[in-house]
Amino acid sequence: MTKSRLEAFSDGVFAIIITIMVLELKTPGPNSPPGVAALLPLLPTLLSYLLSYIFVGIYWVNHHHLLAASRHVNGLALWANLHLLFWLSLFPFTTSWVGQTHFAPAPVGVYGLVLLAAAAAWDMLRRVLIRQHGAESLLGISVGRGVKEWVSTGLFALGVAAAFAFPRRAAEATGMFDHATWGSLIAFVLYCVVSAIWVVPDRRIERRMAGAE
Amino acid sequence: MTKSRLEAFSDGVFAIIITIMVLELKTPGPNSPPGVAALLPLLPTLLSYLLSYIFVGIYWVNHHHLLAASRHVNGLALWANLHLLFWLSLFPFTTSWVGQTHFAPAPVGVYGLVLLAAAAAWDMLRRVLIRQHGAESLLGISVGRGVKEWVSTGLFALGVAAAFAFPRRAAEATGMFDHATWGSLIAFVLYCVVSAIWVVPDRRIERRMAGAE
Amino acid sequence: MTKSRLEAFSDGVFAIIITIMVLELKTPGPNSPPGVAALLPLLPTLLSYLLSYIFVGIYWVNHHHLLAASRHVNGLALWANLHLLFWLSLFPFTTSWVGQTHFAPAPVGVYGLVLLAAAAAWDMLRRVLIRQHGAESLLGISVGRGVKEWVSTGLFALGVAAAFAFPRRAAEATGMFDHATWGSLIAFVLYCVVSAIWVVPDRRIERRMAGAE
Amino acid sequence: MTKSRLEAFSDGVFAIIITIMVLELKTPGPNSPPGVAALLPLLPTLLSYLLSYIFVGIYWVNHHHLLAASRHVNGLALWANLHLLFWLSLFPFTTSWVGQTHFAPAPVGVYGLVLLAAAAAWDMLRRVLIRQHGAESLLGISVGRGVKEWVSTGLFALGVAAAFAFPRRAAEATGMFDHATWGSLIAFVLYCVVSAIWVVPDRRIERRMAGAE
Repeated sequence: MTKSRLEAFSDGVFAIIITIMVLELKTPGPNSPPGVAALLPLLPTLLSYLLSYIFVGIYWVNHHHLLAASRHVNGLALWANLHLLFWLSLFPFTTSWVGQTHFAPAPVGVYGLVLLAAAAAWDMLRRVLIRQHGAESLLGISVGRGVKEWVSTGLFALGVAAAFAFPRRAAEATGMFDHATWGSLIAFVLYCVVSAIWVVPDRRIERRMAGAE
Repeated sequence: MTKSRLEAFSDGVFAIIITIMVLELKTPGPNSPPGVAALLPLLPTLLSYLLSYIFVGIYWVNHHHLLAASRHVNGLALWANLHLLFWLSLFPFTTSWVGQTHFAPAPVGVYGLVLLAAAAAWDMLRRVLIRQHGAESLLGISVGRGVKEWVSTGLFALGVAAAFAFPRRAAEATGMFDHATWGSLIAFVLYCVVSAIWVVPDRRIERRMAGAE
Repeated sequence: MTKSRLEAFSDGVFAIIITIMVLELKTPGPNSPPGVAALLPLLPTLLSYLLSYIFVGIYWVNHHHLLAASRHVNGLALWANLHLLFWLSLFPFTTSWVGQTHFAPAPVGVYGLVLLAAAAAWDMLRRVLIRQHGAESLLGISVGRGVKEWVSTGLFALGVAAAFAFPRRAAEATGMFDHATWGSLIAFVLYCVVSAIWVVPDRRIERRMAGAE
Repeated sequence: MTKSRLEAFSDGVFAIIITIMVLELKTPGPNSPPGVAALLPLLPTLLSYLLSYIFVGIYWVNHHHLLAASRHVNGLALWANLHLLFWLSLFPFTTSWVGQTHFAPAPVGVYGLVLLAAAAAWDMLRRVLIRQHGAESLLGISVGRGVKEWVSTGLFALGVAAAFAFPRRAAEATGMFDHATWGSLIAFVLYCVVSAIWVVPDRRIERRMAGAE
């Protein structure tokens, strides 16, 4: 089984997910204030779009690296990949919900749950590919589950817990955060921290592959 | 005629179909109940999305296997492939209709009819490719019409018949099944059974191709 | 300049155009009649979708053949290709307009004008590629402008003229044709005739390429 | 790191951006005037769509050339590419806003700001790739920042300034320009001039690559 179609199909899905999220950025209606002030109500949606764009970008870059280190894929890997893409396909929904409700706690919590599910699906795909290639393979020694993975899972879980546990309305929350609670703000900041951790591409694979050449 | 563009184009269509279905998952409106309870009315849509996602995934995986076993494609195969993709392109419509009507019998029946049509189109594509490669080819010996194909066609037909034949409202049907009938519930369960049969990828091709190497 | 990215990008655009047209097929609203009767008002949209699907399919198949016979592409060919894709990108709009107005004369006429523009853009792309490869090349001898091209252009033009010239409401036009005129019905039939002429893939290229091997 | 997936993913995003913009071209409603006159109110949207289509086309063609001259891409280039695609992904939004407001100054100004941001992101991608390949590489000598780049940045900036600085309603602005100001009309014309400059593909790379062979 060659991996080229897995890559092509996944690239298509990644490209569509990352692009259709922007469709939620609706143009201001005819009754909106004149000038650029009309864009102010869109800021929450733009902000949540930006974060999701970065997360999909992270998954695409790491998918790129993971598959580059793989030699072939079996039927199980095809389904593990489809499973990952399923959770990613829910990003446009949660992103739009977060933006429309101006960071209300329930959407922010569900957003984090989907992030957690995608992270778990990513780990399953990684394991399936390693089991197929063997722990001694280039893939096996390159993509172990390291500190970054554990930290992000922890921060996602913490964010979800915060979103649901601190329902107190943030007193100074106005404008784009008018439905936010202390919990949902903490959660959103934690998600941003995770994205910052990962924007640096996974040098481990790049370095080890270079070393193996 | 090389098969690479057929694969690339089909991957694009598969990727779009599987992704735009999620656009039907509309975010809860401003008058929805607060908290995650707002997601409850979306459950039917999510459930039908999940089933359709799996079906498109099955077609993609099997398409992957079928083309991997093919050496070249002629003009007839291009059109047989477009014919298959046409029926798959109707999945977002039927999926959305089933979800919005909470499993009403007519949408569930039409959903099954489109599944039947796609299955027939798949069989036509398979036959066209086999005729071109010869019954003695790797393709010919790998992808015969086996038990799984007959069983799924039978279950689809049974489901469609049930959806239209048992219009009695399921007495206990409330919430996400409030428009469901006994027939439509039976039909939906039958479709799920078929999807479960097929999630296991077609080992026949994988095994025979491995054997032929 | 390799042609692979031109093919990949075009495949993406073809795949999206052919798929988003189906988004116009809106599910019946909550006040629609129960049962499959709810689908009746969708028939015009389904019919126009089907015709446009076939036209996009024809362009994809012929694009496949045209590029298969080309060896390389220059900057001019990239723009000639983008020009073709521009007109194809208007198909979802005209298709939806025809369907929503139940074959009213203006939409049917504009639909034909876009078909004509796409045909002209196709011819320009063909000429650009032939000029680049030389009239003696495989491409030059394979894809001359033959009878089929002239006939389709004529039928398109005839259809457009009919749509605008015979505004008399078809007396028996009811249901899905309630806004149709004699002219728009004639036009739509002519477009269908052209699609039928072309569904047969361009054997000329296939045959000559086979002969050249 | 091979560049093929970067190209495939980018092609997907380019294809989707260029195609979904047309979704903003909504069909005339049931109360619109009969005949082709119903299309008149769509002219601003069609015009802004056409301009954005050309800009995305320009980026795709130049991306094609830039990557053709590159041998490999590192992690930083992947993110520089994602950064470029982010700004391009905002084109459908600004395009639609310009069209719906009939060239009002704020949308036209924001449209120009996104064009400026995309141009800056393009320059960053170019620099990242050149730094990786070395100034003496084929890429380094082919894609310097020339006159065209400086002129377009200047014209974009001039357009944005004009859109915000001349709020006087153009007295004769009627119909499709009924919300336009002198500033916004000047800005739109300047953007069109830039697009005209670039439609001619970047011959420098083509010529130097041909020369290097």
